[in-house]
Amino acid sequence: VQRTVTVGSRSESVRQANLSVILRGLHLSGAATRSDLVASSGLTRSAVGALVGELTDMGFVYEQRSQSDGSPGRPSPRVRVVTDHVTIAMEVLVDSLAVAVVSLGGHVLDRRRIDLARDEIPVEATVHELGTLTIELLQALPDTLVIHGVGVAIAGVVRRSEQSVIVAPNIGWRDVPLGELIQCALPIDVPVVIANDGDLGALAEVRRGVATGMSDVVYISGEVGVGAGVITDGRPLGGAEGFAGEVGHIPVNPGGLPCRCGSTGCWETEVGEQALLRRVGRPPGGGRAVVDEILAAAAIGDPDVLAAMDAHGRWLGFGLAGIINTFDPDVVVMGGLFARLHPFVSEALESELDRRVFDVVRQQVGVLPSGLGLDGPLLGAAEWAWERVLSDPAAAGRPRSWAI
Amino acid sequence: VQRTVTVGSRSESVRQANLSVILRGLHLSGAATRSDLVASSGLTRSAVGALVGELTDMGFVYEQRSQSDGSPGRPSPRVRVVTDHVTIAMEVLVDSLAVAVVSLGGHVLDRRRIDLARDEIPVEATVHELGTLTIELLQALPDTLVIHGVGVAIAGVVRRSEQSVIVAPNIGWRDVPLGELIQCALPIDVPVVIANDGDLGALAEVRRGVATGMSDVVYISGEVGVGAGVITDGRPLGGAEGFAGEVGHIPVNPGGLPCRCGSTGCWETEVGEQALLRRVGRPPGGGRAVVDEILAAAAIGDPDVLAAMDAHGRWLGFGLAGIINTFDPDVVVMGGLFARLHPFVSEALESELDRRVFDVVRQQVGVLPSGLGLDGPLLGAAEWAWERVLSDPAAAGRPRSWAI
Repeated sequence: VQRTVTVGSRSESVRQANLSVILRGLHLSGAATRSDLVASSGLTRSAVGALVGELTDMGFVYEQRSQSDGSPGRPSPRVRVVTDHVTIAMEVLVDSLAVAVVSLGGHVLDRRRIDLARDEIPVEATVHELGTLTIELLQALPDTLVIHGVGVAIAGVVRRSEQSVIVAPNIGWRDVPLGELIQCALPIDVPVVIANDGDLGALAEVRRGVATGMSDVVYISGEVGVGAGVITDGRPLGGAEGFAGEVGHIPVNPGGLPCRCGSTGCWETEVGEQALLRRVGRPPGGGRAVVDEILAAAAIGDPDVLAAMDAHGRWLGFGLAGIINTFDPDVVVMGGLFARLHPFVSEALESELDRRVFDVVRQQVGVLPSGLGLDGPLLGAAEWAWERVLSDPAAAGRPRSWAI
Repeated sequence: VQRTVTVGSRSESVRQANLSVILRGLHLSGAATRSDLVASSGLTRSAVGALVGELTDMGFVYEQRSQSDGSPGRPSPRVRVVTDHVTIAMEVLVDSLAVAVVSLGGHVLDRRRIDLARDEIPVEATVHELGTLTIELLQALPDTLVIHGVGVAIAGVVRRSEQSVIVAPNIGWRDVPLGELIQCALPIDVPVVIANDGDLGALAEVRRGVATGMSDVVYISGEVGVGAGVITDGRPLGGAEGFAGEVGHIPVNPGGLPCRCGSTGCWETEVGEQALLRRVGRPPGGGRAVVDEILAAAAIGDPDVLAAMDAHGRWLGFGLAGIINTFDPDVVVMGGLFARLHPFVSEALESELDRRVFDVVRQQVGVLPSGLGLDGPLLGAAEWAWERVLSDPAAAGRPRSWAI
């Protein structure tokens, strides 16, 4: 939780903190009157006026006269963000790549997602494709856009300090300086930040999804691999080296199958996409089209598929029970493939939780599908790229136009 | 990490924060010269002088001329805490109760531990026993002691805001206002604070144990029940309602045994004391004496016991691998019974971790037995009781003597 600063600190850092609070509020909660901003920030009316003036001069916000709401007196103008400011969000999954252009305020101006062949994806081809997609998107958008940065979500273990991928077992990458490579592939010179897709999915949920405003959140996502982003007491769980949240590799089955991580019986071997294909009798591999077929069969009540979903749901509940007993979260958000499976697995999953979660914890925890769909981590990547601007609007520097 | 405050804030809170930093440093790191305190606090020499003066007036510290170390010039006096200031630490386990008197500076002045009959322990008898043990300890100590509070570690789920026990499955308690009951049973009117024994074990390890100064720590302890205290990024993991850390109830065995929590196949059913007794062919129950016998047999190389230890170690590693992949800690500290088992289980445990933990995480994580022995949570309980004094020495109020 970011706070306004009214006493103490040097005046320059007070100004920075307060500019940040006002811009962040408008970015996350939308347009607001000056009175709203006074109430939400705890700052005085004159301080809010000065800060809005500064943000207006920087080009981040403008004031728009409201429609009268019928109450007496002149309607207050509303302060809004200028949506010409954008970040580029990218997502690198095992079987797809996505790029989106996201405005200040969190609106997706445009996006592209492409499917990829499974397994080993060469780094160079991936980076080239991301660059091409970005340029295509930008060329179709007005050239007045001001690009502030690039955020990348990847299904792998990331060293944030170096914007590099340490290992992405399901993609087959190891020690890839992805931030640097993407920076070189783009025609714009802006900062590139990288993070794990689970972590960014969690960020999207607490900022714009079903966990908005909650302080203890577990976001789990499953595609080929299974990962999580965890927020504890309002802060992302990082771990000693930033590798925390690899819940797909919690051992849950002593007689289980080999996992791509080198272990056996990991939760991922029971609840990842491959496990679903196995349970419905499909060959491994598959991809989005096969998953779509399985979901369609479930929707029309195919009994074999529903039985497989039931078994899948029990394993989801088995692993989630341990995660919930460990974290005592306000909510578990199911993202990615799990969000799509949720209607078909929730009954079995919830009944496992009833059996296995401490009742005091069980009473208050909810398990909800993400409402952000497949775009969750992509929105999180945009938020991650926005962070530099939101935390210090004045230092975000002069607008950078792009031109090839 | 607590910081000194040199700019900003109201002067009263500056003074409070700085008194806190100085007293906490002396409490945790021992005697120091004024020059040491200038270096460790970042405050000026004159500020340190004033703060030491104030703490001296409050009776918390004194200055003692050092022995000459042979270097030229007058030796600097060292500032030390006054060890007449004490807290009472209590521990309520499934099979024992303990009480200790712990001085400012963390020295255990005296302690008592008594074994109890297993299973259901009436609340009233427990509270009465804790009161009696406390009075016996205090009567044997000088009556100049100043008692600042009581900290209680309990093997159960605690609601800290109410100083009450929500549920302690292995003790058989539910909804016990333990803080209030202990307060009534003591002849002194001081604050009583309650916390989970795993959480307090972790606190003891980061303050005075093998994890001193580390920011990402998992402390696991096993007696009858298995629990954890987790520190992430320097802060205790609490969860939405304070129930986080129940890692004994991570499901690890789909074909596993019933657990006292109502579930089956919990980690506790494979690595708790009962599982050890089962593996060496002993009847359930047992207690400290039986565990001592088993450890003695292991120490002289009894092959059956060593084989059981090996199986126990593999299950310890199986569950710990998931915990490590989830938290990416600097260190895992094994407390309680686990510390005693460590020499006999570590080989099997480490080999499971080699197989099951992400290699980038595996490379940097250590698994260490607690050096604090059975007293870890008790020292943590003392630290917990000290917290009120350390965070605001001036408000800790005038000394309270005790007299029956």
